[in-house]
Amino acid sequence: MKTDVQIAQEAKLQPIAQVAEKLGITGDDLELYGNHKAKVSLSVLKDNQDKPDGKLILVTAINPTPAGEGKTTTNVGLSMALNYIGKKTITTLREPSLGPCFGVKGGAAGGGYAQVVPMDDINLHFTGDFHAITAAHSLLAALLDNHLHQGNLLNIDLDRIVWRRVVDMNDRALRMITVGQGSRANGVERETGYDITVASEIMAILCLASSLTDLKERLGRMIVAYNIEGKAVTADDLEATGAMALLLKDAIKPNLVQTLENTPAFIHGGPFANIAHGCNSVLATRTALKLADYVVTEAGFGADLGAEKFFDIKCRYADLKPNAVVIVATVRALKMNGGVVKTELSTENVAAVESGSANLIQHLENLQKFKVPVVVALNKFPTDTEAEFEAVKKACENKNVKVILSDVFSQGGKGGEELAHEVVKLCDQGESQYQPLYSLELPIEQKIETIAKEIYRADGVEFEPEAKKQLDEIVALGFDHLPVCMAKTQYSFSDDQTLLGAPQDFNIHVKEVRLSAGAGFVVVITGAIMTMPGLPKVPAANGMDITEDGEIIGLS
Amino acid sequence: MKTDVQIAQEAKLQPIAQVAEKLGITGDDLELYGNHKAKVSLSVLKDNQDKPDGKLILVTAINPTPAGEGKTTTNVGLSMALNYIGKKTITTLREPSLGPCFGVKGGAAGGGYAQVVPMDDINLHFTGDFHAITAAHSLLAALLDNHLHQGNLLNIDLDRIVWRRVVDMNDRALRMITVGQGSRANGVERETGYDITVASEIMAILCLASSLTDLKERLGRMIVAYNIEGKAVTADDLEATGAMALLLKDAIKPNLVQTLENTPAFIHGGPFANIAHGCNSVLATRTALKLADYVVTEAGFGADLGAEKFFDIKCRYADLKPNAVVIVATVRALKMNGGVVKTELSTENVAAVESGSANLIQHLENLQKFKVPVVVALNKFPTDTEAEFEAVKKACENKNVKVILSDVFSQGGKGGEELAHEVVKLCDQGESQYQPLYSLELPIEQKIETIAKEIYRADGVEFEPEAKKQLDEIVALGFDHLPVCMAKTQYSFSDDQTLLGAPQDFNIHVKEVRLSAGAGFVVVITGAIMTMPGLPKVPAANGMDITEDGEIIGLS
Repeated sequence: MKTDVQIAQEAKLQPIAQVAEKLGITGDDLELYGNHKAKVSLSVLKDNQDKPDGKLILVTAINPTPAGEGKTTTNVGLSMALNYIGKKTITTLREPSLGPCFGVKGGAAGGGYAQVVPMDDINLHFTGDFHAITAAHSLLAALLDNHLHQGNLLNIDLDRIVWRRVVDMNDRALRMITVGQGSRANGVERETGYDITVASEIMAILCLASSLTDLKERLGRMIVAYNIEGKAVTADDLEATGAMALLLKDAIKPNLVQTLENTPAFIHGGPFANIAHGCNSVLATRTALKLADYVVTEAGFGADLGAEKFFDIKCRYADLKPNAVVIVATVRALKMNGGVVKTELSTENVAAVESGSANLIQHLENLQKFKVPVVVALNKFPTDTEAEFEAVKKACENKNVKVILSDVFSQGGKGGEELAHEVVKLCDQGESQYQPLYSLELPIEQKIETIAKEIYRADGVEFEPEAKKQLDEIVALGFDHLPVCMAKTQYSFSDDQTLLGAPQDFNIHVKEVRLSAGAGFVVVITGAIMTMPGLPKVPAANGMDITEDGEIIGLS
Repeated sequence: MKTDVQIAQEAKLQPIAQVAEKLGITGDDLELYGNHKAKVSLSVLKDNQDKPDGKLILVTAINPTPAGEGKTTTNVGLSMALNYIGKKTITTLREPSLGPCFGVKGGAAGGGYAQVVPMDDINLHFTGDFHAITAAHSLLAALLDNHLHQGNLLNIDLDRIVWRRVVDMNDRALRMITVGQGSRANGVERETGYDITVASEIMAILCLASSLTDLKERLGRMIVAYNIEGKAVTADDLEATGAMALLLKDAIKPNLVQTLENTPAFIHGGPFANIAHGCNSVLATRTALKLADYVVTEAGFGADLGAEKFFDIKCRYADLKPNAVVIVATVRALKMNGGVVKTELSTENVAAVESGSANLIQHLENLQKFKVPVVVALNKFPTDTEAEFEAVKKACENKNVKVILSDVFSQGGKGGEELAHEVVKLCDQGESQYQPLYSLELPIEQKIETIAKEIYRADGVEFEPEAKKQLDEIVALGFDHLPVCMAKTQYSFSDDQTLLGAPQDFNIHVKEVRLSAGAGFVVVITGAIMTMPGLPKVPAANGMDITEDGEIIGLS
């Protein structure tokens, strides 16, 4: 089979203006970025406010393994498949982060015949949204340090500055740094550090904002530090809000591209799925719901993190009522969950599939708690066997959930025809019965416990003393009503990444609790969460190139 | 009179595709970024290779003062004026840097009725070129620190790492930092710092590259450090070149916008005018020369820095033959050069104009050394008097240089009609007699002396011991043939920014000599040059905002 890049470069793209026109987006509502990317004006959503929403389908996955699950591939493939069976569909995805692209990943825009294009642009600067977020974040950091340098009128406590800096690059040397060294003219010396841009609270805000005004309100509420009396110092206090909003004036508009089969795709926003909620923007999803009958969307990592936060944070804030959930699994990944090592994945092993399916089953049970119907998409690999498929089907039968083979990677939309029909059937069951897992009225501690016990199946939650103190402060500041945003390893239901399958008899250990007052959630950090990745021994960047005539090498 | 923003927002812009079409740029050669910005494919230059070049006019200025000279305004106004008198003209400018926009400046796209538009986009992210440069620079930094972390196979000397990081923000706290702190997983601890993006060698390279292949060769030659044997370690050694080029694949293409009177404007690249050469990209200038009969271009700071480097670096590397130079002055700025304080500039003071004109005269004499005809554009202010104008004219008469009043700020192209006619006359004098100031064959030390004596009128050059050592190393490495890129205060011919007018009896003090092996010049740092600006007590950012319906506040 051809490589992803070859398939993408051979694709017959439609001019994006034509893709937009089919959605009714014309004239000033469309800003072209070249022939195959565009930004869609926020007035499209306003102008269609009274239209009924289309059906909303979440694509999520089992816990990721090195075997690969193909969540984005299935998302893209499902949208093409719905299109293929005659349903007007839009897919909505997150923008990939530039940093990881040069590390291990090399790119992220689906795979095989289920890709969004132009994949090179999507993987690189795209329409500049992440750069705008980096700039807005950097501006606030510069204004904060400048405030300290100019006399610190707000009495900021140097030991309680929480605003760090960001860059969209995997740069471990920036995790912990000291700034302001040298002469007095170089500012106030203090320890701080960088996170990757997708971990910026501004990224989460961009993805949760319902309008430019809402964006500004959220930006203004962001806490950058505490003063010597322990009161929060916000972006508004630094008079930074307007300038940040100005930097984000285009980034807030959803980006329109297309799949290999010309299905419209809104790719917008990309908050980190651990310290943020990991879903594409509310504005993109809402706009898509007004323009299409079916909207496919995604959430980061496995369903224990991504889907839970999609339901409990994004749907709650954006008043979305999802109609169906597709959970993606592969035989290979289930085998890994069943204890098989990566080199043995091509050998049939029904017993391992059976035992590894415990991971899938727990996700199914969890998803059913949100009262949204579920279907399993089993993403086909050439080495899978019939007996292995049957093992997965049998495991899910008890939960009354269908398992459908998906072959969108090799066949495009046609390969997802059966899945599309099943999704339509689930969506047509009537009004969405969606409900979040917990009530916002619960104390934060109980919200955390609810997720830990109901979703992760932990025995309980242990707070480190520092975390407990932080929690008390957040409550004292009046933020007890916020939803929680769990930061946990994506590889396990537990906070120990080596425990695959459906682990039992464990506690969740909360190491730190952070307040994202602008985004509107409390981040609960368990285990060792990294907010700035590093590069591997041989970074993907080493193999990348572009020739004089524009051929791109090493991006996949 | 209306504000710059008001004038810009009331302007009747043409669709940029229409502006491009008049230049013969159509189809795939134009990539739209919204309706009023576009990138122009490099194949436009290739396809027009055999066409004769248009006339090239440099707009430069006297040493800048807080009174303001209006160099960009005159550049834009002259291009409109040439258009107004029926000459097919393109202006080529540098992209403004985002950082200073939030500090004191608030924006930079000309002023009054002589602006390039859309000024808000040009001042903010524009087409993302600077973000791409920041990303490429950051990638190389991350790869370098990753190399140290992964075992330092190249034996890089930790004390001789010259590659710093960049961000497009005025952030003084980042001037001197320590990275890699904390656990071993956070990399190798070492001191380093950030410069502003326009100071990146990659910016200079983007502006000097003649093709993508040339860009890659220059990127690959950049020296990031020296190994323990004193040998240079380059970007090629880190296998970073291809990935950086990939990040710059769109940034290398010139950006097309328009003036308020729809004159085509290529705004592309923006290297710092001290540690780099301060001119827009070679590709933009060359492309413009193939598409228009007259091309107006600019160089940073006053003529002692900007014009000298334009002639000795850019024209030499790009094989350009400029036909005329316009030097911009104002009565107010000449008065400041004559010792008048800023609050007294509105009062007539012929004597101060006469004595301050010494600054202008020295620039005229200098420019004549490059054998290109010169005209003075006196940028009109409402408080100027007839007697003051006459004083300037009289001062220049001895040098056989005409002084022409320019009122493009208030009147647009019409206000520059006389200037345009004079420029055409100068250009029509026959073949360009341009010659650089010094031969590349001279030793670097003599090149520096030539500039110091001929342009600055210094008695001599003093090298600090460290600078002398650096110079010897550069010669030993085999880079004696490179041109020099002077970094000196822009406010004075000397390296002491308080010496206005035409100072005498001084030496130039060289503190540091840096090698930019990729850009292809040796940076000679005199006095206290800052490569990372800071924010003022009340940053311009504090007054910026955008309303829900898109009205922009505080950008000018």
